[in-house]
Amino acid sequence: MVKRPAIEEAALLRIRPSREERRQIAAVAEKIIAAVDKTGEARGMLVGSIARDTWIAGEHDIDIFLLFPADLPREELEIRGLALARRTAGLFTGSVTEKYAEHPYIQALIDGYEVDLVPCYDVASASAIQSAVDRTPFHTRYIRGKIDGFIDDVLLLKQFARAGGIYGSDQMTEGFSGYLCEILVLYYKGFSPLLSAAAAWRPGCVIDPEGHGKKKFDEPLVVIDPVDPKRNVAAAVSLSRMMGFVELARGYLAAPSPAFFDVEQEPGITREELSDLLNKRRTHLFSITFAAPPLIPEIVVPQLKRSVEAITEWIERNGFPVQNARYQLEGDRCMLLFELLIAELPAIRTHLGPPVWNRENAEKFFGKYAGGANGGLPYITTGKYAVEVPREYPYARDLFSPHLILNTSLGKHVRQSLAEGFDVAEGADCWQEEFAAFIGGFLKRASPLIRTRQKKNGGKK
Amino acid sequence: MVKRPAIEEAALLRIRPSREERRQIAAVAEKIIAAVDKTGEARGMLVGSIARDTWIAGEHDIDIFLLFPADLPREELEIRGLALARRTAGLFTGSVTEKYAEHPYIQALIDGYEVDLVPCYDVASASAIQSAVDRTPFHTRYIRGKIDGFIDDVLLLKQFARAGGIYGSDQMTEGFSGYLCEILVLYYKGFSPLLSAAAAWRPGCVIDPEGHGKKKFDEPLVVIDPVDPKRNVAAAVSLSRMMGFVELARGYLAAPSPAFFDVEQEPGITREELSDLLNKRRTHLFSITFAAPPLIPEIVVPQLKRSVEAITEWIERNGFPVQNARYQLEGDRCMLLFELLIAELPAIRTHLGPPVWNRENAEKFFGKYAGGANGGLPYITTGKYAVEVPREYPYARDLFSPHLILNTSLGKHVRQSLAEGFDVAEGADCWQEEFAAFIGGFLKRASPLIRTRQKKNGGKK
Repeated sequence: MVKRPAIEEAALLRIRPSREERRQIAAVAEKIIAAVDKTGEARGMLVGSIARDTWIAGEHDIDIFLLFPADLPREELEIRGLALARRTAGLFTGSVTEKYAEHPYIQALIDGYEVDLVPCYDVASASAIQSAVDRTPFHTRYIRGKIDGFIDDVLLLKQFARAGGIYGSDQMTEGFSGYLCEILVLYYKGFSPLLSAAAAWRPGCVIDPEGHGKKKFDEPLVVIDPVDPKRNVAAAVSLSRMMGFVELARGYLAAPSPAFFDVEQEPGITREELSDLLNKRRTHLFSITFAAPPLIPEIVVPQLKRSVEAITEWIERNGFPVQNARYQLEGDRCMLLFELLIAELPAIRTHLGPPVWNRENAEKFFGKYAGGANGGLPYITTGKYAVEVPREYPYARDLFSPHLILNTSLGKHVRQSLAEGFDVAEGADCWQEEFAAFIGGFLKRASPLIRTRQKKNGGKK
Repeated sequence: MVKRPAIEEAALLRIRPSREERRQIAAVAEKIIAAVDKTGEARGMLVGSIARDTWIAGEHDIDIFLLFPADLPREELEIRGLALARRTAGLFTGSVTEKYAEHPYIQALIDGYEVDLVPCYDVASASAIQSAVDRTPFHTRYIRGKIDGFIDDVLLLKQFARAGGIYGSDQMTEGFSGYLCEILVLYYKGFSPLLSAAAAWRPGCVIDPEGHGKKKFDEPLVVIDPVDPKRNVAAAVSLSRMMGFVELARGYLAAPSPAFFDVEQEPGITREELSDLLNKRRTHLFSITFAAPPLIPEIVVPQLKRSVEAITEWIERNGFPVQNARYQLEGDRCMLLFELLIAELPAIRTHLGPPVWNRENAEKFFGKYAGGANGGLPYITTGKYAVEVPREYPYARDLFSPHLILNTSLGKHVRQSLAEGFDVAEGADCWQEEFAAFIGGFLKRASPLIRTRQKKNGGKK
């Protein structure tokens, strides 16, 4: 085996779980699984990064699946599965919460560990799954069968992706899942060869470890699931995240530094910094803040994205160019942020009419405006009628009125939340403690490699 | 013959030349022609509206062509033609000026009449002409042979077009020539039938009185010259002027009024009105004024047009939307006028870079901007690099600096004039006495029909 660079060895010393952590986790998992198995109702199975030995020290949520017979009706599974999960958790803790992803499941705090107890079907092959959760045991089996000798590489990749801000397949991150990291390390046979390959990735890149190669995918990065040819493991990875990884790979290969493995909290911008920055940029910042819809992020975040797009479209349709727009879900609050190039337009705007040669419409248009009651008077420009009318919204601020914002194509639950009220702020007044990091990143946009270099030890060894 | 409406009869009483005017003009023309003929060098011929009896009372420039043998070499024609014209004029006046259109000619003030003496070739047919002026005698012969019974109609049409601001085939007007008016009246057999037809004109309309019908023309209105199938008599008519005529025809047919035959000077805007109007509109007016190039309008005006287009393009490329832009040649001064929606933009702008997957260019871009010396830091947006850089011209006023204006694609002679110096003004300071009507029309744009209705007696009898 090739000797790793000192930087990577040093990182591994920090991210490899200790023997004590491993022992404790194994003990917790074992007693829960034993309790499940004892019921005879379902079979307990440890899955996820714990099961695969690929968790980063301290990042140790325990995922235990309860595998029920595949012939159990779906409603039965939901009722009996949840009941068993709750009962099992109750044996060890009083802290039990019901959660909901595709199915309901139980989250419990046992001996200081967050444990998910997830009912699923025990199916014969991954192609026979009835829902996404049924696939997880196959992933675990696949990775466990091949991961020997590559565990440190997976740890390095996960930490590298986390430090670069592209770890996580949630809608907010649009980055790499743990399973994707494992597949990539196995496919390229290590962390280093993966980075060398990724430095030359282009959109449309297809990685197919088991040579399934049938289905076409539209996503920029395609990694065909070894256990399910119809699934792209990298479906959540946005083009920008993919290219962020490409950039990080190049940057690390060219000039390795511990910063590439340092997970550093983005420092939030202060109110004064924000005020200074806006004065310097001379742009016009507007924020909409409101209570998050009481739903999981997987449902809320895509709606936030859609809402920002719709509102941006609305703002630009009124003649105000938008420099940047973004959304953030922070606990139970959401913020939509818009940076405009201008905040005020003239009192008039051009309203184009029909061509003069289109007699019926032309005469209608002329009749409507000839009196001047609706603003200017009709004139002819390149053969068409036009008229200057009063601009409906000469001040950008007015575009954020509740009835106008609610009239855009918002996501359903975001609309419901906004309809209950929202705050609009302008300029430095957009600043809020809980969104300070978001606002800072919004105004000081920088690629993952730049952010890595900005870390305290960025660029230097 | 159908009895004309009283409005038209009343107009004719004002625009038909008096017997005395006819007699005087005939006497002046006759003595000049006699003088030309007497030399034996060339044949004198009265052309133009005087020859065709289609001039409006008081609008009586006398055009006399000196027809030289077609086998005379071109240089000979220019030298001998000009000499003969000058000598002939000198017999009657001391006020003799040399002018230049396609050829040089002589303009003289004789007995109070402006007389043009234009040398040309006496060719056998219009298809054998050597330059545009040779065609004129054919036009005169063609019209004279057919105009009987339609003279009043031509007078009405000319006055109608003049009052509507679309009479004149010069580059500034882009409207109807006198010859075009005559052809249209002959083709449609009178003023009224022409208006009825024109009310339904569409771009691409082709009128071909002699059924030549071969060549295709691109202009919106095509009227094939009866004496020259390769020529569109309406080539100078812009789409907007054509549609202005269409609109006037509809308006007159729907509600005739003397205003349609009233040539009324557009009242200029006052400085105070301009100031008030700009405060109300909240737009940003910029003017460039400079000495007109010492050339005929046929050369200067198209260059003004091109220059305004180029400068508009320059302004908009820098992020400032232009609401309206226009040029004016007023004696020996030119004005270019621009109305902008905004006058100030943020200190930053987005500079888009290459896709991150284009490794060579991406690394070059990253290297150039990663230090932050050129503004912001590289970020990734939909897979491409971008960076915020300082905006070169955040204030619209700065776009009008001499070196920047001279760097746009101006017309050649306009550039030469601008290079010698120009004034830039902003807001109400754009106002200048001689351009007061131009600026007023620019800001209070209105179609010909609207302007007709705005006249003192507009709409009412």
